[in-house]
Amino acid sequence: MAVFTEVSAEAASAFLAEYGLGNLHTLKGIAEGVQNSNYLIESDQGRFFLTLYENRVDPAELPYFHDLLAHLRTAGLPVPAFIEDGKGQWLKQLCGRPACLIEFLSGVSVSRPTIAQAGNVGTALARMHHATQSFCGVRENTMGLSHWRALAESCGHDALAGITPELPDRIARELDLLEAHWPHHLPSGTIHADLFPDNVLMIDDGLSGLIDFYFACTDIQLLDVAITHAAWSFSADGGQYMSSIGTALLQGYSNEIALSEEDKAGLHWLFRGACLRFLLTRSYDWVNTPAGAKVTRKDPLAFLRRLDFYSNPANRNILFVEVSA
Amino acid sequence: MAVFTEVSAEAASAFLAEYGLGNLHTLKGIAEGVQNSNYLIESDQGRFFLTLYENRVDPAELPYFHDLLAHLRTAGLPVPAFIEDGKGQWLKQLCGRPACLIEFLSGVSVSRPTIAQAGNVGTALARMHHATQSFCGVRENTMGLSHWRALAESCGHDALAGITPELPDRIARELDLLEAHWPHHLPSGTIHADLFPDNVLMIDDGLSGLIDFYFACTDIQLLDVAITHAAWSFSADGGQYMSSIGTALLQGYSNEIALSEEDKAGLHWLFRGACLRFLLTRSYDWVNTPAGAKVTRKDPLAFLRRLDFYSNPANRNILFVEVSA
Repeated sequence: MAVFTEVSAEAASAFLAEYGLGNLHTLKGIAEGVQNSNYLIESDQGRFFLTLYENRVDPAELPYFHDLLAHLRTAGLPVPAFIEDGKGQWLKQLCGRPACLIEFLSGVSVSRPTIAQAGNVGTALARMHHATQSFCGVRENTMGLSHWRALAESCGHDALAGITPELPDRIARELDLLEAHWPHHLPSGTIHADLFPDNVLMIDDGLSGLIDFYFACTDIQLLDVAITHAAWSFSADGGQYMSSIGTALLQGYSNEIALSEEDKAGLHWLFRGACLRFLLTRSYDWVNTPAGAKVTRKDPLAFLRRLDFYSNPANRNILFVEVSA
Repeated sequence: MAVFTEVSAEAASAFLAEYGLGNLHTLKGIAEGVQNSNYLIESDQGRFFLTLYENRVDPAELPYFHDLLAHLRTAGLPVPAFIEDGKGQWLKQLCGRPACLIEFLSGVSVSRPTIAQAGNVGTALARMHHATQSFCGVRENTMGLSHWRALAESCGHDALAGITPELPDRIARELDLLEAHWPHHLPSGTIHADLFPDNVLMIDDGLSGLIDFYFACTDIQLLDVAITHAAWSFSADGGQYMSSIGTALLQGYSNEIALSEEDKAGLHWLFRGACLRFLLTRSYDWVNTPAGAKVTRKDPLAFLRRLDFYSNPANRNILFVEVSA
């Protein structure tokens, strides 16, 4: 949580003028995001998000994200639009960084979702998947199955064992299982790939925004369901499955896109894969981020506990108990 | 720049409900302030600042700041009001911290002030000093002359020399001079004591807000002029005096409150004292803040350079050259 690039009022004012959006009234650095610097900007003509892309986002990929959001917005999904300046440019430079002015969406990210909120997330995810059937853009999932073995190796055996002694062996076994059983036959499409509560805006129980598409990519669409389910349906430490939330989320999704028995069988491995993806990336960040750094490290073990839950055969039937196609 | 205490949407929503201010629409942690955690909160009934006071503000002093802002607001100054909840309480608890909901003022903090902006700051400062003539609250200046010797000692000779070799001797000599020449006879009153550009909001050249009164206290009122002049009238590194800015600021002030020859003579020492105050507190923070910490350290030497400027007899007449009472 930080602002990495300082933008002065003078620079923001000159930037805003290029859009013909009036005089600067507010400029506040927002303490969120680990990849970009974000500012709330307000003029007499409205308010906007200013995003400066730091080193972790490749500017060459921004057109993919732009096109995806434009496509979703046309389909009626509540995603933020990139705003064009007076010359029709949406990707610009500010303070030496690629920078975009983005529509500001109201809503808050909840910490303890209600059943109604979880259902609405499932529904919105299905509508997003439906809308992207006609989206032509393609982007590799750089956080997908084929990258996990290298990610585990780059953490290092000893560093992983330093997190918890059984971790290296557990990851190795899980990798073998997932590579053997991955449901490659399930339909591929565009996925958000990171739809945590942080990336969903709510007003009361209503969903007002889907944001932060910078991990969006092409992969098995049900992997998105698995990631979202793992992200929303557990206590923060991963130790407790909240069945009413998980069930509502799956129900909200399957009301829009029916889940076949084949889908449910594949989801078993996708749930486990979703957990391994965040276990690995959080382990990597844990090992490579000093404890006192500006970015708060997230506990990798919160996803090891989720992996334990999804791996347990006793829990297989709990997941879909009330979900009808 | 950080948010020290995380406030969930659920906690903010419950807090807002106690004020009867509608449903939560936006909750954004703001990346500013080194003493408090600040959030922008928006409901269907308006927008507000939520401040959680961290360890550096003594909750027992908040009534002084509350009363001062209420007094200034009644006098027509653009300062933010503390908002009362349904029971008439303005000081509450949230997430284990003293917490207040505060009026949101539009405007941005400039980095390179225009002459018009500098003049408006001088005028606003004088109006604030005028308005506080009828304010009864008293608070010791814990960053004032009588505290500087102890502050220098707590830094330690070697640590100061580590910043720059001549620093310990320079501080010792300056302390002796200031204690000998301090203009105790000049009128005392309420001062902001920290009116840097960060703490002034502007819309175009107009001043829309004076904020962050947490150093406000009772001291020689012209010390506030000296601090504000030193804060606004130099390049960021302190190496260059911007005479048009400094002159406009003093002119703006003296248009409202005339400066006598005695005032100008006293200001010589107050300018130097203002520099020493920030030289000492920045040195203390420099010595006691790890380089990788969440809070950005500010360069103490930027105020040693200002001190050099104000101490130089050749510059004495430059300061007041165009200022008429």
